[in-house]
Amino acid sequence: MARANRRNTPRRSRERSIEQLPWRLPTNPYRPIEVLSADQLESIHDASLRVLEQLGIEFMSPEALDVLARAGAEVDRASGVVRFDRGLIAELIDKAPGQVTVTPRNPARQLILGGDRVVFTSVGGPPNVHDAERGRRPGNIKDYGDLLRLIQSLEVVHCIGNQPVAPTDLPAESRHLDCYLANLTLTDRVFLSTSIGAERVRDAVEMAAIARGASLEQLAERPALISNININSPRRVDGAMAAGLMALARYGQVVVVTPFTLMGAMAPVTLAAALVQQNAEALAGIALVQMVRPGNPVIYGAFTSNVDMRSGAPAFGTPENTLATLAGGQLARRYGLPYRSSNASASNVVDAQAAYESQMSIWGAVLGGANVVYHAAGWMEGGLTASFEKFVLDAEMLQMMSEVLRPIVVDEASLGLDAIREVQPGGHFFGAAHTLERYQTAFYQPMLSDWRNYETWAEDGARSATERATAIWKDLLRSYQQPPLDPGIVEALEAYVRRRKEEIARQAA
Amino acid sequence: MARANRRNTPRRSRERSIEQLPWRLPTNPYRPIEVLSADQLESIHDASLRVLEQLGIEFMSPEALDVLARAGAEVDRASGVVRFDRGLIAELIDKAPGQVTVTPRNPARQLILGGDRVVFTSVGGPPNVHDAERGRRPGNIKDYGDLLRLIQSLEVVHCIGNQPVAPTDLPAESRHLDCYLANLTLTDRVFLSTSIGAERVRDAVEMAAIARGASLEQLAERPALISNININSPRRVDGAMAAGLMALARYGQVVVVTPFTLMGAMAPVTLAAALVQQNAEALAGIALVQMVRPGNPVIYGAFTSNVDMRSGAPAFGTPENTLATLAGGQLARRYGLPYRSSNASASNVVDAQAAYESQMSIWGAVLGGANVVYHAAGWMEGGLTASFEKFVLDAEMLQMMSEVLRPIVVDEASLGLDAIREVQPGGHFFGAAHTLERYQTAFYQPMLSDWRNYETWAEDGARSATERATAIWKDLLRSYQQPPLDPGIVEALEAYVRRRKEEIARQAA
Repeated sequence: MARANRRNTPRRSRERSIEQLPWRLPTNPYRPIEVLSADQLESIHDASLRVLEQLGIEFMSPEALDVLARAGAEVDRASGVVRFDRGLIAELIDKAPGQVTVTPRNPARQLILGGDRVVFTSVGGPPNVHDAERGRRPGNIKDYGDLLRLIQSLEVVHCIGNQPVAPTDLPAESRHLDCYLANLTLTDRVFLSTSIGAERVRDAVEMAAIARGASLEQLAERPALISNININSPRRVDGAMAAGLMALARYGQVVVVTPFTLMGAMAPVTLAAALVQQNAEALAGIALVQMVRPGNPVIYGAFTSNVDMRSGAPAFGTPENTLATLAGGQLARRYGLPYRSSNASASNVVDAQAAYESQMSIWGAVLGGANVVYHAAGWMEGGLTASFEKFVLDAEMLQMMSEVLRPIVVDEASLGLDAIREVQPGGHFFGAAHTLERYQTAFYQPMLSDWRNYETWAEDGARSATERATAIWKDLLRSYQQPPLDPGIVEALEAYVRRRKEEIARQAA
Repeated sequence: MARANRRNTPRRSRERSIEQLPWRLPTNPYRPIEVLSADQLESIHDASLRVLEQLGIEFMSPEALDVLARAGAEVDRASGVVRFDRGLIAELIDKAPGQVTVTPRNPARQLILGGDRVVFTSVGGPPNVHDAERGRRPGNIKDYGDLLRLIQSLEVVHCIGNQPVAPTDLPAESRHLDCYLANLTLTDRVFLSTSIGAERVRDAVEMAAIARGASLEQLAERPALISNININSPRRVDGAMAAGLMALARYGQVVVVTPFTLMGAMAPVTLAAALVQQNAEALAGIALVQMVRPGNPVIYGAFTSNVDMRSGAPAFGTPENTLATLAGGQLARRYGLPYRSSNASASNVVDAQAAYESQMSIWGAVLGGANVVYHAAGWMEGGLTASFEKFVLDAEMLQMMSEVLRPIVVDEASLGLDAIREVQPGGHFFGAAHTLERYQTAFYQPMLSDWRNYETWAEDGARSATERATAIWKDLLRSYQQPPLDPGIVEALEAYVRRRKEEIARQAA
């Protein structure tokens, strides 16, 4: 009945002092929640096709317009607006695979995206970084490295977001190279590449190929990278994103198409209309990928949340955000596509709000059948800050969720009639044979939660979860171990970065 | 398609300064999550019947043993152990209604328990009380009153737990009378009565009847009270609980039967076996209720969590707790019974842990199809402390959850094609007609969450959610309004309490 021998895995990595679950890609055994009836789903699908047929999507890229026109879309060269026949959309979406495998330099860290799998990626993109001891500061390459070390030390963070923090102390034109080099040397996990323009994509692909000892053709066959293409909602794909999208497809890497649909600002104020717009935009991006390289792996991305209508400030982990995530999953499954969601919160501090907003998004993602949860660890302040403490908080919540996804074992031994027989009414099970055989691995052991009684906890400093998180990330950084990499490969990567930086400097001059 | 005009309700109670959703009993539109396959569910059901047939349950009450023997159970007078034939159990469970209505003195606060309804009760039972300004202190009648005022001021807390804090400054034998009087005068909501012995139950029933201006017969026809009967797991019903259970049934009030099954301590260490024991104990208690008064309303209660196997300390909001809650819902539905779960956390402080453990239990309850969520607001420290700040944190999380349970409206207006048409690519929806018509009620407005940007939030004191919660409960207490009650009824209630205290004093003398 049970797939695995539940709660029977070693829970302590030998090298580390912090207790963790071992690396594993959770499978989600639960039927997703359906917030839309079949009729409602079809209404949203149909309305989004009307948007694509009648209103269209603007592509700010002559090259993309060429591709789109050649593939049969109706291109208005003057405005850049492209309209799509629903038959064309259906045909292109059909070419996309339902499941994708992504392989980094260490094949043990391979990711499967799609089906019932759930992959957690770290935060990506914040311009600031924060921890409780040093406060809030602009992103920089030293913190970038430390965040990578933290990710590498957390088994539940399967994948590195696109720049866990932006190293704003490095030149904007070439910092992606420093980031890729750090990703490939300090960690052995899949990372999300930058997608701003074709060059940054090419650099990621070339470096991933060097790290894997693979040719570009081999990399296209077995992709190594994931990258996010944001739609500049409403209904616009800018030039850099269009170029990045096409480059990713040409190199055969995984394209996540994510409309940036904050209800009330970049999308209509009603959930239904925001979903219509999200769906139209996602399908248009996915269609372009399939025009460039039929069968290229794509992921249906959703980022529909709402703004605070008093201030215009974005809000995350809201009820509307959760409902949109659940509905988005129904749309992605309608097209047979893997689904991307996020763990997000608007809190400015790692507090109860950060926890409940993140829980709302994590539950929404899991119940919505998300296959990739972006920003699953470390995102704070609506994405403006990467937080060391939030990394620990999120890792605990992700571990708990991955335990909730493990099936219950029901067999003669686990039904425990002998144990129930052994203990008299009013007795206890502490000393029962059934308990003694299992107690070491019976339950999830938390990383952050403190279950001691009040007195013991108070005597030990009465520390909140956030205060304890500081001690935990410092401990994790202290015991970080760099994953081995052939010195020849390191040299080749460094040489690539040097050469490209020289080229970029020459171009700028 | 939609049941209600989503997001179109007034969200500000006029008398209050704190923004809240209006009173409503949420309906849960989602299919519960099934963690057990049909076969697994039957295995657990069957094993629990084997426990009832072969091992039995101890009842420490000669009166209960009489009732049980008369109804056909196999009673061992010497040990007090009672064995039940599975046919007898099935027959008795069949008599229990699937849905229950509970009517307090204000019929507008009527509760429906069962079906797809979700009712949130406040914390009940802690010996201590805490707030950020005055710290942790033993429960007392002044804080008892303030907690009632807070509950009455929070629209999302539908029902008062059994003693939101124990008033330990009052005599143990008669404090239930002071509590009932306060419940009936400071609030107009359903409350959970004490169930320790028949007398305390009778007092609750008599006073609820006075408050409603009803006879005891009328109260039995339309119950006013809910009460919890804890099984002293493993497999024991103590004398006071047995007496309370039988009294509640005789008076026709709602009996929640809840085994206290902490895995590893009072229940076996495996989930499957703990569920077997929980189910056997719950069915035995429910069977006794149906023997006393066939058709009496009962609720299947679950409280299966785990202990920390290093220290023996109870843990809540754990993955095992959530899985047990989901599985418990499947068992309750198998018998067509309403289902009770809890919002619980082991955290010693209102912090991120308190939030994520509570979220785990709230999501587990909702996805498990719970009809009553005990301790939904205010429970801290594994139930040892009632917290004013936790009340506010929980109320926010409950409001968010009740918004997640509201169906999405999909119709021509909400699909918003005109709005999408109106806004050009790259534009924004702030000024769109579609937005302006809806922006005031489009989204959930939080009570506690702070969505302001970092700078504004920092200038305003950089307060965490817990710090903001202090200001909110103080504000709620300041604007508390006592619900009107006929002075004659108040007098009669006070006279009842006086008379009973004199009787109790005479008995003690």
